[in-house]
Amino acid sequence: MEHKTDFLLKMTLDAWLLQLKRANTLFESLPNALLQEQVAPDRNTGLYLFGHLTAVHDAMLPLMMLGDKLYPELEEIFIKNPDRSGLKQPSPDEIRLYWNTVHTTLNKGLAQLSQEEWFGRHAAVSEEDFEKEPHRNRLSILISRTSHIAYHMGQLRFLKA
Amino acid sequence: MEHKTDFLLKMTLDAWLLQLKRANTLFESLPNALLQEQVAPDRNTGLYLFGHLTAVHDAMLPLMMLGDKLYPELEEIFIKNPDRSGLKQPSPDEIRLYWNTVHTTLNKGLAQLSQEEWFGRHAAVSEEDFEKEPHRNRLSILISRTSHIAYHMGQLRFLKA
Repeated sequence: MEHKTDFLLKMTLDAWLLQLKRANTLFESLPNALLQEQVAPDRNTGLYLFGHLTAVHDAMLPLMMLGDKLYPELEEIFIKNPDRSGLKQPSPDEIRLYWNTVHTTLNKGLAQLSQEEWFGRHAAVSEEDFEKEPHRNRLSILISRTSHIAYHMGQLRFLKA
Repeated sequence: MEHKTDFLLKMTLDAWLLQLKRANTLFESLPNALLQEQVAPDRNTGLYLFGHLTAVHDAMLPLMMLGDKLYPELEEIFIKNPDRSGLKQPSPDEIRLYWNTVHTTLNKGLAQLSQEEWFGRHAAVSEEDFEKEPHRNRLSILISRTSHIAYHMGQLRFLKA
């Protein structure tokens, strides 16, 4: 059964990596000028969504207790505030760099988590609450972020013909 | 460990049900006229995506070996052909009915699958191939469909202000 649980953990991790792979393929295919366009009229730009996903995944580092955020300044621009907030956004090339660095660090950390650690609490839940709500573990973060990236990928897809 | 695997299976099923719940909330909030609009210029209508998700989830019944499709005619209209194919589409109210019926049947079936059945092969893989590729199990279908619905939910979201 130990084996089955490990197998299931691997499937969950693979689902996350598959979404990232699709995102990489899309972002690499989009020239900077196209990335800066809105995905639909009066909707977020591709750049904002790219920054948003980078910021959300960067925040997974402390949430999964894998370390500090690499680019804490992204939260204000891409999570706490909407697009066209007037806040200065990094350039497309800067975000491309942040994206790659965040995922190299994050995925290295995720690959090293033990089964016990996957089922352990994440940083946003207290030990006391975790006793009552054991599903608020690291794995739940990964599952939730996998749906989150897919959601925005459906939107980013509209930048392509 | 049996317990841990069951716990993980429940988390995976809950992630699927959460996406369905969000989809239900969105579809119920959209009047038929709005549902029939394109989600973005020259993109699929909400109705097409609603029908597409219904057809894909209906096809999960035979794929998960839970029974026959309830509405096999949807495949031609909403999977094999694009929107504006000229094929007659069901009305919004018909698709609302199909959507509800498919999920009542499907989720009842999913709730009854044993741990062993979740790890068993799905119908699109032969027993021979499954020996070599044991990740092609029922659970992989559910994980994949959870990302799929999230992807299209990101697009359907654009029907709202």
